Amino acid sequence: MIDLRSDTVTKPTPDMRRAMAEAEVGDDVFGEDPTIRALEEETARLLGKEQALYVPSGHMANQIAVYVSARSGEEIWAHATSHVLGNEQGASSVLARVVPRTFDAPDAVPDSALLERWSAGIDDVHRARPALLCLENTFTGRVVPLSEQRRVTAFAHSHGMRAHLDGARLWNAAVALGAAPAEVADGFDTVSTCFSKGLGAPVGSAVAGDADTIQRARRARKLLGGGMRQAGIIAAGALYALRNNIDRLADDHSRAARLAKGITSATGLAAESRTNMVLVTTEPGEAPGFAADFAEQGVRCVAIGPDLVRLVVHLEIGDADIDTAIAAIGAAVTARGGAPELSRLRAGW
Amino acid sequence: MIDLRSDTVTKPTPDMRRAMAEAEVGDDVFGEDPTIRALEEETARLLGKEQALYVPSGHMANQIAVYVSARSGEEIWAHATSHVLGNEQGASSVLARVVPRTFDAPDAVPDSALLERWSAGIDDVHRARPALLCLENTFTGRVVPLSEQRRVTAFAHSHGMRAHLDGARLWNAAVALGAAPAEVADGFDTVSTCFSKGLGAPVGSAVAGDADTIQRARRARKLLGGGMRQAGIIAAGALYALRNNIDRLADDHSRAARLAKGITSATGLAAESRTNMVLVTTEPGEAPGFAADFAEQGVRCVAIGPDLVRLVVHLEIGDADIDTAIAAIGAAVTARGGAPELSRLRAGW
Amino acid sequence: MIDLRSDTVTKPTPDMRRAMAEAEVGDDVFGEDPTIRALEEETARLLGKEQALYVPSGHMANQIAVYVSARSGEEIWAHATSHVLGNEQGASSVLARVVPRTFDAPDAVPDSALLERWSAGIDDVHRARPALLCLENTFTGRVVPLSEQRRVTAFAHSHGMRAHLDGARLWNAAVALGAAPAEVADGFDTVSTCFSKGLGAPVGSAVAGDADTIQRARRARKLLGGGMRQAGIIAAGALYALRNNIDRLADDHSRAARLAKGITSATGLAAESRTNMVLVTTEPGEAPGFAADFAEQGVRCVAIGPDLVRLVVHLEIGDADIDTAIAAIGAAVTARGGAPELSRLRAGW
Amino acid sequence: MIDLRSDTVTKPTPDMRRAMAEAEVGDDVFGEDPTIRALEEETARLLGKEQALYVPSGHMANQIAVYVSARSGEEIWAHATSHVLGNEQGASSVLARVVPRTFDAPDAVPDSALLERWSAGIDDVHRARPALLCLENTFTGRVVPLSEQRRVTAFAHSHGMRAHLDGARLWNAAVALGAAPAEVADGFDTVSTCFSKGLGAPVGSAVAGDADTIQRARRARKLLGGGMRQAGIIAAGALYALRNNIDRLADDHSRAARLAKGITSATGLAAESRTNMVLVTTEPGEAPGFAADFAEQGVRCVAIGPDLVRLVVHLEIGDADIDTAIAAIGAAVTARGGAPELSRLRAGW
Repeated sequence: MIDLRSDTVTKPTPDMRRAMAEAEVGDDVFGEDPTIRALEEETARLLGKEQALYVPSGHMANQIAVYVSARSGEEIWAHATSHVLGNEQGASSVLARVVPRTFDAPDAVPDSALLERWSAGIDDVHRARPALLCLENTFTGRVVPLSEQRRVTAFAHSHGMRAHLDGARLWNAAVALGAAPAEVADGFDTVSTCFSKGLGAPVGSAVAGDADTIQRARRARKLLGGGMRQAGIIAAGALYALRNNIDRLADDHSRAARLAKGITSATGLAAESRTNMVLVTTEPGEAPGFAADFAEQGVRCVAIGPDLVRLVVHLEIGDADIDTAIAAIGAAVTARGGAPELSRLRAGW
Repeated sequence: MIDLRSDTVTKPTPDMRRAMAEAEVGDDVFGEDPTIRALEEETARLLGKEQALYVPSGHMANQIAVYVSARSGEEIWAHATSHVLGNEQGASSVLARVVPRTFDAPDAVPDSALLERWSAGIDDVHRARPALLCLENTFTGRVVPLSEQRRVTAFAHSHGMRAHLDGARLWNAAVALGAAPAEVADGFDTVSTCFSKGLGAPVGSAVAGDADTIQRARRARKLLGGGMRQAGIIAAGALYALRNNIDRLADDHSRAARLAKGITSATGLAAESRTNMVLVTTEPGEAPGFAADFAEQGVRCVAIGPDLVRLVVHLEIGDADIDTAIAAIGAAVTARGGAPELSRLRAGW
Repeated sequence: MIDLRSDTVTKPTPDMRRAMAEAEVGDDVFGEDPTIRALEEETARLLGKEQALYVPSGHMANQIAVYVSARSGEEIWAHATSHVLGNEQGASSVLARVVPRTFDAPDAVPDSALLERWSAGIDDVHRARPALLCLENTFTGRVVPLSEQRRVTAFAHSHGMRAHLDGARLWNAAVALGAAPAEVADGFDTVSTCFSKGLGAPVGSAVAGDADTIQRARRARKLLGGGMRQAGIIAAGALYALRNNIDRLADDHSRAARLAKGITSATGLAAESRTNMVLVTTEPGEAPGFAADFAEQGVRCVAIGPDLVRLVVHLEIGDADIDTAIAAIGAAVTARGGAPELSRLRAGW
Repeated sequence: MIDLRSDTVTKPTPDMRRAMAEAEVGDDVFGEDPTIRALEEETARLLGKEQALYVPSGHMANQIAVYVSARSGEEIWAHATSHVLGNEQGASSVLARVVPRTFDAPDAVPDSALLERWSAGIDDVHRARPALLCLENTFTGRVVPLSEQRRVTAFAHSHGMRAHLDGARLWNAAVALGAAPAEVADGFDTVSTCFSKGLGAPVGSAVAGDADTIQRARRARKLLGGGMRQAGIIAAGALYALRNNIDRLADDHSRAARLAKGITSATGLAAESRTNMVLVTTEPGEAPGFAADFAEQGVRCVAIGPDLVRLVVHLEIGDADIDTAIAAIGAAVTARGGAPELSRLRAGW
């Protein structure tokens, strides 16, 4: 089985396990876990922020950022399918009680005309105050250019809003852009990032920002129950990932490119790669069937829409796995009687 | 330094570290982490409930239990200093938005007269509906008798309320009562428990109940950001603790008893033990000074009130440590010019 | 000045004022205001529900309905621009903490394919539980056919959801459909309605449903601060409106039709009427300018979009006012140098 | 029947009804109701604040003040039985999501030692930030001295907290203190007050403060559904009350004093008056029975505790009613077989 469902499925490598087994730990609720401290400091340094806070999940990192950035009843502007809204469980409605205003921009960033329209009448007592503008980079694998980020964060700050970056896959963006992580995080008041996706650590994320914000984030983490005791055990895995697994993301990206190209030549299906993700476009309603057929041939993946199958390359996937996956997908499509005509498909993600 | 601040300070033993290093893991968000599954099943079995859910902290376990047991604006009845109210950050007001009604009973359990008074007019549209009644066992080390638990849970159920047990230290209660953990959990709709206190695991707690409740708890865990990926690494420590560290709590209890007795003979201070805790009563306002002086002599502890110093025995504390602690505390009190007259002190906790 | 901004601007007539001045009142918090009781009973009877509850505003009526119909974190399905979401202040995120899932259907009702798609995986623990499906009738003046309502409420009930009707202008819908108000309210678990829009009362709305729901609504009203003392004074106006001003809505509708036709012939602008509303389509971005020019000529109205001007007919508008308004709007358009070519405009609302 | 249950039971007098019937009104959501504007300006002026906002109930006035003064998860310090906590429905937990910290001071004001203790460790990340300190004047009829208010508000401000006064009966306090209302409101960031209690208006309250606070309060009122349309009808009653019914509260106070004295001489029961309230102390558990017996003799009142019966004097109660009430209560006590021995009772309220 080649598991391409997500880059979250990776298991710790022996070296990473050794780092965890030997981790120096303490009670982090008393601020005494040296491994967590080291992880938080290294994360903050890499992201160019004053402080960072370790939390059990990327979801919590985002929700904490929202909670400390906006008051109940204030607006958060974000992509309609962004993770920060926590749509699956409506977390931002329940925890921060913010009001979502969503854009649908296919390239992950709202255009200036939309921003201007939304900010008209920003002081009107009849509407909620806009407090936070969120981007995600990468967004379904797509890299957001730094100039676009700067345009949006500048807009936010000139209208009294804060800016948050969901950087769960910021490391992929940095590698793809040839930029330092701190450059990708630049201009944002808060940044969340994840150690358990492309970097391969078993557990954990962080939220970074200035000292006052992270102080309040620490309170919010306690509120949500994200304070853990001798979490240095798992933080050691995250620290190992940060120190060893960033540069190698370039390999995931080139393998994803090769996988996309291979799928298209083997099957005729439209397949595109963006950083470590490949999206295969099917006829409307066919994506779940394709995903099931791929799995039967040994390639696990996810239908993320009625006509989109997503495959994610990660650190457990080598060159040979790419070859195997292409062959398996080819066989699956053949068994289905071939791909639909390519001309009828557009790559819509 | 002998660290008696809390039983949360313990670090994993070599055996436990080995269990963690070798843990079989998977992506628990996809339900594929075998170690977490094993931990959840063993916890449910021990507590006599249908299912259990692993979460990053005891705080989250309690807050999830409250969230799934009561709706916004409904009443939760709990001890004024209980952890379930999450008073430090007011978590139950923010997350579940329940309305606290608190009792102050020194023995941790509300008497029947109080319960009757509170339940009068329970259907009155002018007041909030009472939804949840909470106990904590042990409560600041104090064991709540099973008959008392039964009285309270029966009351709750006969008045349409659910009953929750904060069993962070339920294992200590079971050992002290000579009862099975399931007997201590009996009669409660939900029970939270902790692996990182007396049991010595580095991270994690669980909430247990019937299948429908835990299904909803799973949603609530996702909402709060408590879903972790390859958390089997740390769950392995919890599983090890569950299999190896319950019975040995009896040693902590007898060491705590010896510590209390030793402190009183060495210093004249009123010291009492309950399960694995010792509370030393000082003159009003003097507790912080005493705690600081003990620390200076090598014994770390916590002033939990103006006249109460708490010392907690745990698995890193051996017999020799008890002797050393008694001597150090004796020296500290002598250096202060002796204890206040015993007759002026009462043990008030 | 002819005020066509909204049907909320009407002032009580002398007869209605007399009814209020003579109203029998009592302390409604003690349930002793006979006028409010009469109003609630008559409203419930007209809507074919067991009980109704008087509240200070239509916004509160809707928010109470949402609050009693869904728990925190559950989904509410509603039109993207519906009032029930309380988008202006994000009320449903703050008060009920529900998660909005919005449809954009131009005819106010979600089609079956969309409902099927949304309900797929309804039991998945990873997503919020759908709890409430909302319609609005009339919706920006548009009448929703009863068969469409039945399709949607049947879907809701067969999927374990409740159905709510925002019937602020249900009276207009009933008159336009030639149906009894109870027929329009049929199939919905809760219905809100308003006395201060087309009916012309100064203050107040109601929410109706079965006895248990309204019992909980009464608690929610208290929670929100909507319980008023001798509110019979204003309820008398609402009761008067209910008894005298329903049938005459037909006049508003025919006047609105005449106004739309008159505007088009006088100006060439696309103008459509739906019940008591007229929407004039302008070139994109021009609506605010048109609205300002109309006001300068003595007709107040509202730009409800970049290319839509809304004019609302109500009980203070007589036939002569319609003539005057048409003439004034004609003069305004002439002063602007004529209307844009009709062919370039489409009526998009 | 003499209704002494509360000063909320009063019905509008003919003069007040006339003022309401003739009120100039407009759509207040558009800010066009001249009577509401006049009421808000006069209220602000009387209370010495920049602005005031009219709302449907005293409960909403308090909840809005809390909502704009504290963020979710912050602490509000208030008397355990104060209205501002909205305990009946736990409103402050649901709406503002603040964390209550309650004092029990019999004289309605926390002493300085308690305040110092609570403010220790105010910056500790482990506990909720204290945001708001609330007083109530009068408090169950008791007048809080201005010097006590100043002590508490000064403490609040020197610790970064805001101060709120629940002044539902501030007018009684001002009359009793011989102070201007603005003196009673002095030092508080927000003040709520009520027109429908002692002042006798049928509906409505207000919250006052600086311009920025009231701007946010206006948003919060919209959020809660407290925005009403032609509410000038009822605001006219409040304005009439403000202009005519403040000074006459002195009569209520002297009548309450006479009622208390009369009850004691007629029955031997301990009865005390404070401003317009009389509290009669009974044996524990007997208060409901006494209240029922008084009602049978024609005097309606409320048992506000197991041993406390409350009678409230208001503008519908004249001198003759006091005489009648004393006689009726005397008869009721005689029918019960006399009062308990006075010596066994203490006036505990």
